[in-house]
Amino acid sequence: MTAFNLSFRLLTMTVLCLTPGEALAQDAALTQAHGNTLWTLIAAVLVMFMQPGFALLECGLTRVKNAVNIIMKNFVDFAIGSAVFFMLGFGLMFGGSFRGFVGTGLFCLNGIDASTPQGQWTLTFWFFQSVFAATAATIVSGGIAERIRFFGYMAVSLLVSALIYPVSGHWVWAGLFSETPGWLENIGFVDFAGSTVVHSVGGWVAFAGAIVLGPRLGKYGPDGKSRAIFGHNLPLAALGVFILWFAWFGFNCGSTTTADGTIGYIAVNTNLAACFGFLGAMCAIWLKTGKPDPTLSFNGVLAGLVGITAGCFEVSPAGAIIIGFCAGVLVVISILFIDQVLKVDDPVGAVSVHGVCGAFGTVMVGLFAAPGYGERSGLLYGGGSELLFTQIVGVLAVFAWSFGMGFVVFRLLNGVLRLRPLPDAENGGLDLEEHGSKAYSGFQIFSNE
Amino acid sequence: MTAFNLSFRLLTMTVLCLTPGEALAQDAALTQAHGNTLWTLIAAVLVMFMQPGFALLECGLTRVKNAVNIIMKNFVDFAIGSAVFFMLGFGLMFGGSFRGFVGTGLFCLNGIDASTPQGQWTLTFWFFQSVFAATAATIVSGGIAERIRFFGYMAVSLLVSALIYPVSGHWVWAGLFSETPGWLENIGFVDFAGSTVVHSVGGWVAFAGAIVLGPRLGKYGPDGKSRAIFGHNLPLAALGVFILWFAWFGFNCGSTTTADGTIGYIAVNTNLAACFGFLGAMCAIWLKTGKPDPTLSFNGVLAGLVGITAGCFEVSPAGAIIIGFCAGVLVVISILFIDQVLKVDDPVGAVSVHGVCGAFGTVMVGLFAAPGYGERSGLLYGGGSELLFTQIVGVLAVFAWSFGMGFVVFRLLNGVLRLRPLPDAENGGLDLEEHGSKAYSGFQIFSNE
Amino acid sequence: MTAFNLSFRLLTMTVLCLTPGEALAQDAALTQAHGNTLWTLIAAVLVMFMQPGFALLECGLTRVKNAVNIIMKNFVDFAIGSAVFFMLGFGLMFGGSFRGFVGTGLFCLNGIDASTPQGQWTLTFWFFQSVFAATAATIVSGGIAERIRFFGYMAVSLLVSALIYPVSGHWVWAGLFSETPGWLENIGFVDFAGSTVVHSVGGWVAFAGAIVLGPRLGKYGPDGKSRAIFGHNLPLAALGVFILWFAWFGFNCGSTTTADGTIGYIAVNTNLAACFGFLGAMCAIWLKTGKPDPTLSFNGVLAGLVGITAGCFEVSPAGAIIIGFCAGVLVVISILFIDQVLKVDDPVGAVSVHGVCGAFGTVMVGLFAAPGYGERSGLLYGGGSELLFTQIVGVLAVFAWSFGMGFVVFRLLNGVLRLRPLPDAENGGLDLEEHGSKAYSGFQIFSNE
Repeated sequence: MTAFNLSFRLLTMTVLCLTPGEALAQDAALTQAHGNTLWTLIAAVLVMFMQPGFALLECGLTRVKNAVNIIMKNFVDFAIGSAVFFMLGFGLMFGGSFRGFVGTGLFCLNGIDASTPQGQWTLTFWFFQSVFAATAATIVSGGIAERIRFFGYMAVSLLVSALIYPVSGHWVWAGLFSETPGWLENIGFVDFAGSTVVHSVGGWVAFAGAIVLGPRLGKYGPDGKSRAIFGHNLPLAALGVFILWFAWFGFNCGSTTTADGTIGYIAVNTNLAACFGFLGAMCAIWLKTGKPDPTLSFNGVLAGLVGITAGCFEVSPAGAIIIGFCAGVLVVISILFIDQVLKVDDPVGAVSVHGVCGAFGTVMVGLFAAPGYGERSGLLYGGGSELLFTQIVGVLAVFAWSFGMGFVVFRLLNGVLRLRPLPDAENGGLDLEEHGSKAYSGFQIFSNE
Repeated sequence: MTAFNLSFRLLTMTVLCLTPGEALAQDAALTQAHGNTLWTLIAAVLVMFMQPGFALLECGLTRVKNAVNIIMKNFVDFAIGSAVFFMLGFGLMFGGSFRGFVGTGLFCLNGIDASTPQGQWTLTFWFFQSVFAATAATIVSGGIAERIRFFGYMAVSLLVSALIYPVSGHWVWAGLFSETPGWLENIGFVDFAGSTVVHSVGGWVAFAGAIVLGPRLGKYGPDGKSRAIFGHNLPLAALGVFILWFAWFGFNCGSTTTADGTIGYIAVNTNLAACFGFLGAMCAIWLKTGKPDPTLSFNGVLAGLVGITAGCFEVSPAGAIIIGFCAGVLVVISILFIDQVLKVDDPVGAVSVHGVCGAFGTVMVGLFAAPGYGERSGLLYGGGSELLFTQIVGVLAVFAWSFGMGFVVFRLLNGVLRLRPLPDAENGGLDLEEHGSKAYSGFQIFSNE
Repeated sequence: MTAFNLSFRLLTMTVLCLTPGEALAQDAALTQAHGNTLWTLIAAVLVMFMQPGFALLECGLTRVKNAVNIIMKNFVDFAIGSAVFFMLGFGLMFGGSFRGFVGTGLFCLNGIDASTPQGQWTLTFWFFQSVFAATAATIVSGGIAERIRFFGYMAVSLLVSALIYPVSGHWVWAGLFSETPGWLENIGFVDFAGSTVVHSVGGWVAFAGAIVLGPRLGKYGPDGKSRAIFGHNLPLAALGVFILWFAWFGFNCGSTTTADGTIGYIAVNTNLAACFGFLGAMCAIWLKTGKPDPTLSFNGVLAGLVGITAGCFEVSPAGAIIIGFCAGVLVVISILFIDQVLKVDDPVGAVSVHGVCGAFGTVMVGLFAAPGYGERSGLLYGGGSELLFTQIVGVLAVFAWSFGMGFVVFRLLNGVLRLRPLPDAENGGLDLEEHGSKAYSGFQIFSNE
């Protein structure tokens, strides 16, 4: 190891014709570069761990007869998502830009030389971005749970990871890697770790899907009234929330892709927003119903996390507390509104958590961006209303793209593949119908679950 | 990224008027500082992951009718704990000291400038310390499980994180951050990662709570004999133990807050103590009852981990093995003693694991501190009895504070809020009563569980 | 902290009589060394987390009546394995070599000075290697699940960690630490992270054990036909798979034991192989039975991961995709073949996943090793057939050792200890018989499970 480093230093001295003094500088910079790679890799691994977080959350909040199907969906979207993001998505998102709208190169990571530091960094960066893409894809799963056929879901997932997510992602993040930034980046839109780029995109596609597929059988009574369908394993769902919380530190702090001093306060902001998101949601539902409901409180944690993701680098801890608490309250209102007023069936609240709170958190950067944290100042810190306006433009543009494309994709696929299972299959559960399996052999289950 | 580093170097050269040679030194030191921040952050994220560890352990070892309530308690203590540790606790623990007894500044992280390296480090350090505070608070939950109302538990949790934990923490760790060390630190007390500061405090408060609340209904028969109440999900509890074990490497190794060469042997000590704690407890109960009981064996892992936490930097692997094994045996004896002799109902063994084994491990540093590891030598390595005596003083002082304050807090809150649910509510389960919810919809459950 | 670093630099300058310029070089190298220790430690902690991954996978895929026993086996093999690897195994594996066949020193880490950088590195390296040893041991558990007595399993586990694993490990990896490489290393055998060294060894010992113990009662009907025995908790098993996937990044990327630029592409290879392993297995069983079976698909993930472990440093992402997909298909064929043709009862598919796919992946390095990644070129990249031949030799040698020794160990122990429970005990479940416990108190369970 030491020998390797020594020989590496001698090699760089020889190859680059450095004096020993310059070689030392090189050495320190190289060590920092290694630190950046290390941190980006560790963060990516943490973000990958969001997959079981989402899987357990969705599985626990739905019925026992669909548990295997939900788990399988969460595996297959990661597998397919990684594959198509490798082949197509990464290139559309980070390849050289066509007028700021879409990338045009780097498909299959073509032309990357893994023996050079630059090539090694590209591969590391690809891995970090691929787990982000997988996060967006897997969010969709929750909103359309318990009523989509497995093969159809695979097609949806492929199109999200290969096309819908990368294009709007290009608008905001292309400049992280290529020389040609996207159009939203060019007008000053800020979304540090992806409240809009990742979460809202997933949430809005889920919204389109939930509308196209319609509600689960029995979700709305003959009088049109919403009926509660209880999750079958709340401890499992809670574990999912904790895993997501844990992994979110990779998501937000890792978005520096640099091991520097800012990662600490990003973690502080992330954690405080999650805590206050929980408190906000718990208080809101407690005031409304008289009891601190677990499911909505869990979603409060996620609302706080989604809400702070855009601004975790830009706001102060006080801002994070306010954003988190408001996101927690907002998610309760949004879930009840979508369920009872819009009568759209979103089994886990994915649209509210990721779509609504993602949009909310992104706009809030325009208010709370604080001097001394990121490079911008929001309206409340004397930065004027320009940033706020830009944030709203970005949120609306990404909504239009992802909800619109989501709607088209679900309608098209529904026509071609028939996405909805037949009523008997849906009533009997997708585990038996689709996978010939059941989740809990040996346990006695009520027959209608 | 590289451009950023280069410009940063040029900036520091300009601002600080350094020669290139001095700038290189600065660079290497800066990279090391980034490494320290990175490591402290990663460790803090690992420690945060203890929250699901404790939640699953407590949930799995108690009854199905209280599963949701237990999960909710574990969320709310982290949320409230982080909030009040931000506002009050951190300042009491690490603000400039009033005569070594309590800190007096830094409330709400007032005055921290996140644009400076020092400010960034402070925020990172705060995050690391906040997850430690949350650990102490969450330990209490286990000892008083299945028989405390949710609102009352919130009040307990708030007082632990805002007051009880930070004050005794100040006595031992104030000097980690401020110039003015605490009184126990001044007399040479050693508790590297918190056997006493974190675990015993949690354990002793739990002890006070278990005494004040009294045993669960039906726990002791009319003849006063202890009845076993079985946990409802041992695989979930086991997962909790494994998660805690995993996270403990952040807890112990991260307590260096420095990325240096010592973190490796701290991990070796930590892991060997956990393994031998398991073996100690398993052998003890196997010898006593003829069967290797899972619950007590799980607690053996935690006993070993708690036991080594004080001395993980100071003892050799051989010392870690002995401390871990003895803690494993001790936890079995202690659990049986508290349950059957003292007749105090501690559903998960929190008092024995965290209180008793934390005290034991702290005292053992006085025997096993080995030259070549930390800076001290214990009695067995020719260091004399001074350290052993100091360790005992520290353990007793922290017991007096935390058990005493815990007793006062529980008695006061009990008078004001009525902490105990009504008998019907307790028999029916806190999930329905407090949260209008049940943990496992669809599963057939025996009616009395 | 900064003060510590500064004083450390001054100290090294003084002690080593360096000029300031040389001290700077020292500083950068020291920071890199700290980075290497940090990365190796973090990777080791991730690999340690494989333990719950294997525990949940095995537990979820077997019956409810044995769940506690399976969890306990997974604890005890880690505890005993770490203990004996400390005392004996590490020395046999990495101590100075006796003719390339076995190590002869370093027992109990004797003579290590933890106050020196070299000693600190040795302890870090020990921890990393010890969790690898524990992985090999725990693989065995799955293949012999539900029909071995607890005490007998402890003896098996001890012999794997103390003897079987370290000796063949020495053949391939001794040179990582000592000056005297093993004989397979000497002939050019490549197994970067342990497809053969860790996984195949575990798989082949499990194969021997499954043969010696015979199938579970009722697994094969009177007509000799295989009957499906369903797992009792598929969400738990799925969580186990996700945890293993997550931890595998420590396993593969950490095997650099250096924080350099290659860890990123190792992660890319690892993740793509896992994704395509899932897809390969899912497609294979879908084509055969018409349904995407969850259990086999889960095993596809692991097959991809095991398959890429040998070559993750040597192959390109395209190679990883092919190896992963083929391993996924292969694991389905192998599981069906072993179950239905060989009629060997392997409850979780451990032999196919770890033994067969480990061997397959190791051989594939001989085809797919690509210039620009590791230092070798495989047959498909113009490197000739020599590497391929060497890989086959290594795979066969390790099979002969581990299967042979496994067979001897199981036969001997079976004679001395009677490994198999009595039929009534096996039918009633090992949880009651061995541990006086049940996994899910309060749940209604079908009586024959």
